Amino acid sequence: MDRVFIVGVGMTKIGRFYDKSGRQLFSDAMIKAVEDAGGVKPQALVVGNMTSSVLMEQDSLGALLADYSGLRGIPAFKVEAACGSGGAAFYAGYSLARSGMADVVAVGGLEKLTENLTSSVTKALALAADQEYEVFYGASFTGLNALVARAYMNKYGYTREDMAYWPLRMHEYASKNPYAQLPRKTTIERILNSPIIADPLHLFDCSPIGDGAAAVILVRGEEKAREIAKATGRDILVEVKGIGMATDSVDLGSRRDLLTLDSTVKASRTAYKMAGVEPRNIDYVEVHDAFHITGYLALEDLGFTEKGKAVKEWKEGRFAKGDKPEVNLSGGLKARGHPVGATGVYQIAEATLQLRGEFPGEKASDPVIAATQNIGGVGTFTTVTILTRVK
Amino acid sequence: MDRVFIVGVGMTKIGRFYDKSGRQLFSDAMIKAVEDAGGVKPQALVVGNMTSSVLMEQDSLGALLADYSGLRGIPAFKVEAACGSGGAAFYAGYSLARSGMADVVAVGGLEKLTENLTSSVTKALALAADQEYEVFYGASFTGLNALVARAYMNKYGYTREDMAYWPLRMHEYASKNPYAQLPRKTTIERILNSPIIADPLHLFDCSPIGDGAAAVILVRGEEKAREIAKATGRDILVEVKGIGMATDSVDLGSRRDLLTLDSTVKASRTAYKMAGVEPRNIDYVEVHDAFHITGYLALEDLGFTEKGKAVKEWKEGRFAKGDKPEVNLSGGLKARGHPVGATGVYQIAEATLQLRGEFPGEKASDPVIAATQNIGGVGTFTTVTILTRVK
Repeated sequence: MDRVFIVGVGMTKIGRFYDKSGRQLFSDAMIKAVEDAGGVKPQALVVGNMTSSVLMEQDSLGALLADYSGLRGIPAFKVEAACGSGGAAFYAGYSLARSGMADVVAVGGLEKLTENLTSSVTKALALAADQEYEVFYGASFTGLNALVARAYMNKYGYTREDMAYWPLRMHEYASKNPYAQLPRKTTIERILNSPIIADPLHLFDCSPIGDGAAAVILVRGEEKAREIAKATGRDILVEVKGIGMATDSVDLGSRRDLLTLDSTVKASRTAYKMAGVEPRNIDYVEVHDAFHITGYLALEDLGFTEKGKAVKEWKEGRFAKGDKPEVNLSGGLKARGHPVGATGVYQIAEATLQLRGEFPGEKASDPVIAATQNIGGVGTFTTVTILTRVK
Repeated sequence: MDRVFIVGVGMTKIGRFYDKSGRQLFSDAMIKAVEDAGGVKPQALVVGNMTSSVLMEQDSLGALLADYSGLRGIPAFKVEAACGSGGAAFYAGYSLARSGMADVVAVGGLEKLTENLTSSVTKALALAADQEYEVFYGASFTGLNALVARAYMNKYGYTREDMAYWPLRMHEYASKNPYAQLPRKTTIERILNSPIIADPLHLFDCSPIGDGAAAVILVRGEEKAREIAKATGRDILVEVKGIGMATDSVDLGSRRDLLTLDSTVKASRTAYKMAGVEPRNIDYVEVHDAFHITGYLALEDLGFTEKGKAVKEWKEGRFAKGDKPEVNLSGGLKARGHPVGATGVYQIAEATLQLRGEFPGEKASDPVIAATQNIGGVGTFTTVTILTRVK
């Protein structure tokens, strides 16, 4: 199989853009990515998005966004895997490049939660859960994550204050990220005193609701990638070295273990094996911290620490800038923001920029191997990618 | 690249199943397909579906349907391309097999339009059109197709009676298809006198609203395909010899030509080139006749006849059983039924059964090369596949 490289990335700032439609937001990111790749024309487009049917009242999203990005006519479709739609779209797009069905593939993520103020975002996001076994009985998506957080805190004896160091650090990093939705520092006191959402989760333990779009351009073959790198004045390449995807039951009641993201364990082992790496080799990682609990579970299930230890080690300063791996220097979903189906593409764009040394916020310490982990639902889907810097 | 073969197919009857949930319907089809493939276990699942977010109030569909089909844990995601979701899912699934990301890939289509009687199917289907340029102004999906039908009839001088031979023949074929939603013959008189939906389209000119699920199993490599064929008592293989996908603007106002499905022209030429065939080589074809006009345009834009001649030739008996190509012996969307995101997968399953000589309805005349054409929107998306019988 030919090797596949990321040659362009584009992102919009994350926020609530009442003055901009979803299609405008997407084309902003896609045009940036194409420019970043020296103007190479994508031959196919895969779009990651969760809520367009409900909140934008728009299907046919792949063709619509191709057209609005100046790419009318190319193969294009939307991929849905709840909050993991971006990672899943990348999985599908990588496959198109690797199979030779297209030599240049664009993968874009879009979520526009503020398109239509008559619809409920909370209700739309609850569609990630099982309609018949969970939502029908009144469960919200935050409520389900709260169950997991409570079980974890009970089992390992952690307090709300112990857990609060995740959002604390994410806000600190986000304060330097020009794309972040919440670019401001906070304090443990403010986190603990923030309004309750679903016990034990308070406002500052959760990622915010925001709009955003991100895009990456993939090319097949080292020669083409070198040509683009040269034309754009870069002397390194970023290669997609490994990728893994896995799923689990949608409803939490059917899970093997409430406190292990089995899909993350499986997807990461597939990706590590393909890339020929171990967790200890990874320099930089962006994990899916939709809630603080999700971030801690990710560190454990990706194999960076043992079950039950992530909170303690994090509080002691592990996984911060200068450690290995460095985690979520973007500010994470928690503070960079979480435009649902775009999040997985943001993570890949950020990891690419870190490997290039071009990330405009908190910079990683000269990373060579990076990973991203994007979740849909409460661990229903996980896609893990391994990116490497190639001289 | 390794060759890719279809080794299993499964379908449900199409109808309005108020007593069966979407997940049940899907697993019926998927379990049949796996059994048809001698019990081989899929390693990845791609689901084609349009309306689950709105009508089933369910996202995370890929993982949910994998789980309910006994495939918990495998990579799985949903693909949306409006009514062309099934074909687009096949495109993505074929890519996973061809790239070697999975050796055995299941592609399933599901649409459950009767899941939730509080929602409007007409409104849900209108999401295929452009929300800002079309739907907002009151256009329904049938209304948009009616514009095209009217323009075609005006330009080429056809009457409603001329056009009515499409549904007439589709009902005749469907009367022999045990999976068809409308398995009964009709008459020109009945078609002409059926209630008006959107002038000039009357009820019998349109495909019906129905639920259904279909699945196919792909394997990579001739050796594995031969092994499964042997185990299931078959001496032929069905190979995916060509595939093409293309898109167009969503809104009709931006089209180059209202009476040409540019996406069908492009997708078919890509698929023909890959397969090394010309339209005249194709023995059998299933086209996307959501309305009679769509069927006629398909025949022209796939290159089987010239612009404006499809209606005349069809009325004279062309494209019927015994001709080349034979068209829609299933009964087509018109009478077999059109479970939106499942339709593209039904077509591929039917073409596979025709190539095997196992189709349980009207049989094609010993076909060797078959094609399917699946559309999303009013020609916004087209996927064309070329399947061949290999001894």
